[in-house]
Amino acid sequence: MSEPHQEPAGTHESAPEEAAYHLDEERVEAVAAALAARDAAHVKELVAPLHYADVADLIERLESDNRRALIDVLRPDFDPEVLHELDETVRDEVVEYLGVKELAAAVTELDSDDAVLVVEELDRDEQQQVLESISAEDRAVIEEALSYPEDSAGRLMQRELVSVPSNWNVGQTIDFMRQSAEDDKTDEAELPEVFYEIFVVDKDHRPVGTIPLSRLLRTRRPVPVTEVMANKMQMIPVTMDQEEVAFLFRQRDLVSAPVVDPDGRLIGQITVDDVVDVIEEEAEEDIMKMAGVSETDLYARPVETARRRFHWLFVTLLNNILAAIVISQFQTTIDHMVALAVLMPIVAAMGGNAGMQTVTVIVRAYATKELPAGSMLRLVSKEAFVGILNGLGFAAVMGTIAALWFKSAALGGVLGGAMVFNMMWAGLAGTLIPAALVRLKVDPAVAAGPFLTTTTDVLGFFLFLGMATWFLI
Amino acid sequence: MSEPHQEPAGTHESAPEEAAYHLDEERVEAVAAALAARDAAHVKELVAPLHYADVADLIERLESDNRRALIDVLRPDFDPEVLHELDETVRDEVVEYLGVKELAAAVTELDSDDAVLVVEELDRDEQQQVLESISAEDRAVIEEALSYPEDSAGRLMQRELVSVPSNWNVGQTIDFMRQSAEDDKTDEAELPEVFYEIFVVDKDHRPVGTIPLSRLLRTRRPVPVTEVMANKMQMIPVTMDQEEVAFLFRQRDLVSAPVVDPDGRLIGQITVDDVVDVIEEEAEEDIMKMAGVSETDLYARPVETARRRFHWLFVTLLNNILAAIVISQFQTTIDHMVALAVLMPIVAAMGGNAGMQTVTVIVRAYATKELPAGSMLRLVSKEAFVGILNGLGFAAVMGTIAALWFKSAALGGVLGGAMVFNMMWAGLAGTLIPAALVRLKVDPAVAAGPFLTTTTDVLGFFLFLGMATWFLI
Repeated sequence: MSEPHQEPAGTHESAPEEAAYHLDEERVEAVAAALAARDAAHVKELVAPLHYADVADLIERLESDNRRALIDVLRPDFDPEVLHELDETVRDEVVEYLGVKELAAAVTELDSDDAVLVVEELDRDEQQQVLESISAEDRAVIEEALSYPEDSAGRLMQRELVSVPSNWNVGQTIDFMRQSAEDDKTDEAELPEVFYEIFVVDKDHRPVGTIPLSRLLRTRRPVPVTEVMANKMQMIPVTMDQEEVAFLFRQRDLVSAPVVDPDGRLIGQITVDDVVDVIEEEAEEDIMKMAGVSETDLYARPVETARRRFHWLFVTLLNNILAAIVISQFQTTIDHMVALAVLMPIVAAMGGNAGMQTVTVIVRAYATKELPAGSMLRLVSKEAFVGILNGLGFAAVMGTIAALWFKSAALGGVLGGAMVFNMMWAGLAGTLIPAALVRLKVDPAVAAGPFLTTTTDVLGFFLFLGMATWFLI
Repeated sequence: MSEPHQEPAGTHESAPEEAAYHLDEERVEAVAAALAARDAAHVKELVAPLHYADVADLIERLESDNRRALIDVLRPDFDPEVLHELDETVRDEVVEYLGVKELAAAVTELDSDDAVLVVEELDRDEQQQVLESISAEDRAVIEEALSYPEDSAGRLMQRELVSVPSNWNVGQTIDFMRQSAEDDKTDEAELPEVFYEIFVVDKDHRPVGTIPLSRLLRTRRPVPVTEVMANKMQMIPVTMDQEEVAFLFRQRDLVSAPVVDPDGRLIGQITVDDVVDVIEEEAEEDIMKMAGVSETDLYARPVETARRRFHWLFVTLLNNILAAIVISQFQTTIDHMVALAVLMPIVAAMGGNAGMQTVTVIVRAYATKELPAGSMLRLVSKEAFVGILNGLGFAAVMGTIAALWFKSAALGGVLGGAMVFNMMWAGLAGTLIPAALVRLKVDPAVAAGPFLTTTTDVLGFFLFLGMATWFLI
């Protein structure tokens, strides 16, 4: 610790909990009430102390009519950062209602990465209109960013950064920043608002090192920058996928990183605040995909939501038709012994659930890059073994219950046998299906679940009813 | 942009892709081979260029025997940061094998937050041993951190930070840091290795503002710190839950934040690199919980994995026994019409899947605090409506198929009717169950799924078989 100043503390009234303030229910309701009363002054008063991220939340929570009324009140001094924080569906609505003029003004004020985030979501016409209403310089920056693939480093990066030539010293660097800060007031140079490190570049503008500001501040003025810079740095190629970028930031504990073009020249930087959003987004996406929800549809209209979820349910239906076909092959058997109809869903469900446990672990292992190709054999055998272990446990429990319930030890045996086999299969397939999908370049978070449950349903019904036909009828 | 230096770029050979290096399969195999050949020198050579996070990955990927052999090779200069990056199960193994002496040395070298992370995972005995082998000062810091609840800000924070009194100016602040840096070499003062902002404190050591380093660097020496500091800052109470901390960092785009004790005094700081881990962890946890996996068990032994997953499967079994009891009430009906046994799983499965889509959206909305209490009615009716819409669609498709398959329009009608009702219910229950669990302070990510599928199974079978008994028999 390094506090130069430590005096005994007195008592103080302010509870620190208050500092952790964010938008609460009462304020949302108060704003809604003020909007209904058309009391613009009161609305402004209520919104003024809020952080822009909270204003975004407020807009999201209001009903559509109130959203528009609120935007009308805020329009004269609408904070463009709000746009960047909005849920996609709501942002579309707000952007449309704000109109091109306000939007262009907002885009001009934002850092280039946030501006790109807003513009990339517009449809082609609106994009054209907005780009035509901003300065040629801003337009060039945004158009270049849009030329990079979606979800690539080029979209995430901001152009604003601080770089210095490798023959400078610490004093020159600090003076340069102070000078730029002065110039900034006359709107000449564009320093980023906040930055965490300075990039040292060679004569071809290729990064050769970085200096964290905390090190720069602790170094005496005459020291050359090459002497304090770290030269083992993580460069991000402009076309790198954002998932990969997030992985590197997390793995290397980075706060910012230089982005380079294919010739290795420094063209931008990515900062951790944007990466935090990506990490959350990517994990969120995987959760949603595994449940068959294409994206967070909290704010979408019902018809739109129903449409988005239809595909997944359609796949579920196909699975179940396949399972029904299997069952229909054994109608005579079921006719002989109705108890089979009572028990058969258990075999399928236990296999499906055990398999989904495996699928989830494997899918996330791929997502977080914890799964080397070489360990596949070990993993498959482990998961199959886990399936057998739990299969034996549940077979013993459920087999006994079934034997007592329907007074047939043979029926209990058949049920238990089918459960063990199906749960072992669930472990095998739960590992192999995601692995195969990855090899086929199909996203395992989306496809592995339906494939898996189809196999455990089909096999579950087939094993149970087949063994019943063989041994019991 | 603010590059003072821009010369035309030449061509350059180095591909920037190389910079994005992380541990590849070949290196893992090369290390394993070198370990098998007992070629310690070659192992060291292979490990030397790796980042500590990659060394952690390497350790994770090796078989247990090789793990120990590698640790023996690395022991003389074991990088303590590696411990912090390891998966929990593997860390336990490594910590045990390293032994108390090396562990104590490692803990002394780490920043206080990372040291706590390692020590908190030890069992009571080992903790005691390690704490006894380190300096009284380090011990006090770690013991204090351990006194805060698990997953609280107190565990996440580091004690190392830079704070200055509010009557200083920029020049004094910079000189103080340079001086501390000098002292650092004699191991006197402890500045954090990297930091992003300076905290300004009043005479009671309460934070009154923060200055991002980038602003400090751009300000002239005579300016008082109170003039450049931001006084609207986010303070973190030491007992705040880490999930809440992560939310604030994300919402406010923070890179670091002051942690205060109940009297409002500055006692530490949390930096974004630790929060990034928390964000990933929390999202990961929710994915795992929803699939009934208690935590990532990739590196756990099969018996341990089976045991951890047993609970969830047991709940699944209870659900299915309940469903079986419902089916058993309709054995006479099924006996009359075996087609019912063929079709009944479809009704249950479609309801279950539709309901899980809703549950996932609602659970995540709670996790990301996007769900205000006031909007519940709107959401429930939306989800029920979505259920009806998709229910009608699938009822039409599947009802027709069933009618043609079993040559009975009435059977098709009953199937369709049951599907519409069950999917509407899935929307209702998928919203209400997580909401009720949140009110009961039960984690909806764990419990909502099993509850939901129990209701959709029971209702699905009951509706379909019940309506069939009424209309078809």
